[in-house]
Amino acid sequence: MSGRVIIAGLGPGSEALVTPEVSAALAEATDVVGYIPYVRRIAPRPGLTRHESDNRAEIDRARHALALAVAGRRVVVVSSGDPGVFAMASAVFEAVEHGTPAWRELDIRVLPGITAMLAAAARAGAPLGHDFCAINLSDNLKPWALIEKRLRLACEADFAMAFYNPRSASRPEGFARTLDVLSECCAPDRVIVFARAVSTPEEKIDVQALSDATPEMADMRTVVLVGSSATRLIRRTGAPFVYTPRSVPA
Amino acid sequence: MSGRVIIAGLGPGSEALVTPEVSAALAEATDVVGYIPYVRRIAPRPGLTRHESDNRAEIDRARHALALAVAGRRVVVVSSGDPGVFAMASAVFEAVEHGTPAWRELDIRVLPGITAMLAAAARAGAPLGHDFCAINLSDNLKPWALIEKRLRLACEADFAMAFYNPRSASRPEGFARTLDVLSECCAPDRVIVFARAVSTPEEKIDVQALSDATPEMADMRTVVLVGSSATRLIRRTGAPFVYTPRSVPA
Repeated sequence: MSGRVIIAGLGPGSEALVTPEVSAALAEATDVVGYIPYVRRIAPRPGLTRHESDNRAEIDRARHALALAVAGRRVVVVSSGDPGVFAMASAVFEAVEHGTPAWRELDIRVLPGITAMLAAAARAGAPLGHDFCAINLSDNLKPWALIEKRLRLACEADFAMAFYNPRSASRPEGFARTLDVLSECCAPDRVIVFARAVSTPEEKIDVQALSDATPEMADMRTVVLVGSSATRLIRRTGAPFVYTPRSVPA
Repeated sequence: MSGRVIIAGLGPGSEALVTPEVSAALAEATDVVGYIPYVRRIAPRPGLTRHESDNRAEIDRARHALALAVAGRRVVVVSSGDPGVFAMASAVFEAVEHGTPAWRELDIRVLPGITAMLAAAARAGAPLGHDFCAINLSDNLKPWALIEKRLRLACEADFAMAFYNPRSASRPEGFARTLDVLSECCAPDRVIVFARAVSTPEEKIDVQALSDATPEMADMRTVVLVGSSATRLIRRTGAPFVYTPRSVPA
């Protein structure tokens, strides 16, 4: 078999959320490439070489995977969640576009996974059950002005919202600004869900009113979901159900 | 074991995209409830009752599932894709909110699945690799004016976009209007992907420039993805790779 690159989504953490398609690709791989904690989710076995790399080394990691495939290896690039949502798939195609012409003729496939926002939404109920948007709040790779513009337009469109990478230790101020923008544009009782480490033993789901939300409620392992103006809370003995109705009256 | 309702996502079609968590829930179910073609994906076995219902009967189906759970049954409501994305989870919570108080104390869980837009994006490359939105184009449950407002604001925000239910046989004009709005707001070479029946034997992926897109390219089995202004095409011998870079220069 000739070389290939598969970019596979491992889902948010639990092995019960890894698709059989991804498990089969891993079973056939000669090489697994990825960020350290994701590579360590793959059990060692004879014939499999695991290549761990650091966070923020995405393009170097992608080039490494492509070079291995050109040399005939069956490479799986592992990504958390879905590789197409703020994850490794774009990095690999960026490397392909700017790399050697041989790379674009490789067999490159993306295998979808359960992305964090949908795992988080499932735990809360169905907050993304109507039109919604997904925004990466990290300003590593784009200017804050663009993030703020998108936030304001998303509020005007009355989308429910999912925020990835809401708050890094090195730049905590972005999420505080996000809460400020939301407070300007939305009612104080707008529902906000902080979903941390979904499907892992550290999972924590916290449902708040926007007016009670604070920046410290999020960290880099948190996905934040914000309801639309139509999102409802169903009170009950345990944690409430959060859902967005399917219909909007005329 | 007392009654419960699990709302489970079967993914876009292939059994290789059903998570082990969903398979385990189905193996423990006494009753499966859902739209006819989804229920028929579940193999019959002793001890399992399959309840098929028609399309557009979502609330009745949800109430049926809840009543079965109150009677002590272990019910799985099957949904295609992810149940939280334009699917059965919101319908169940709507029924809970407006139903008998006993329903809100039930054990109700949502199990995520691979939603159509992410399966489609994976086939094309990584068109949703940066900020994006998901819009249901059906005007069954909301006014067209709201859909158009969201489309225009999504263009202004320069989101990539995923459209569910782009075109029904009974109301084909909505998608033609959508293409008109996009043509007003986006450059003619904006990338648009028509992904039909992804992961099934009828799968077809068609990458077009917006100016070449026609309403007939979509039907109710199609998910349509529209790139942002930054989305790139990588030309190669086979189908091109489509991806949206992770970064936006300041």
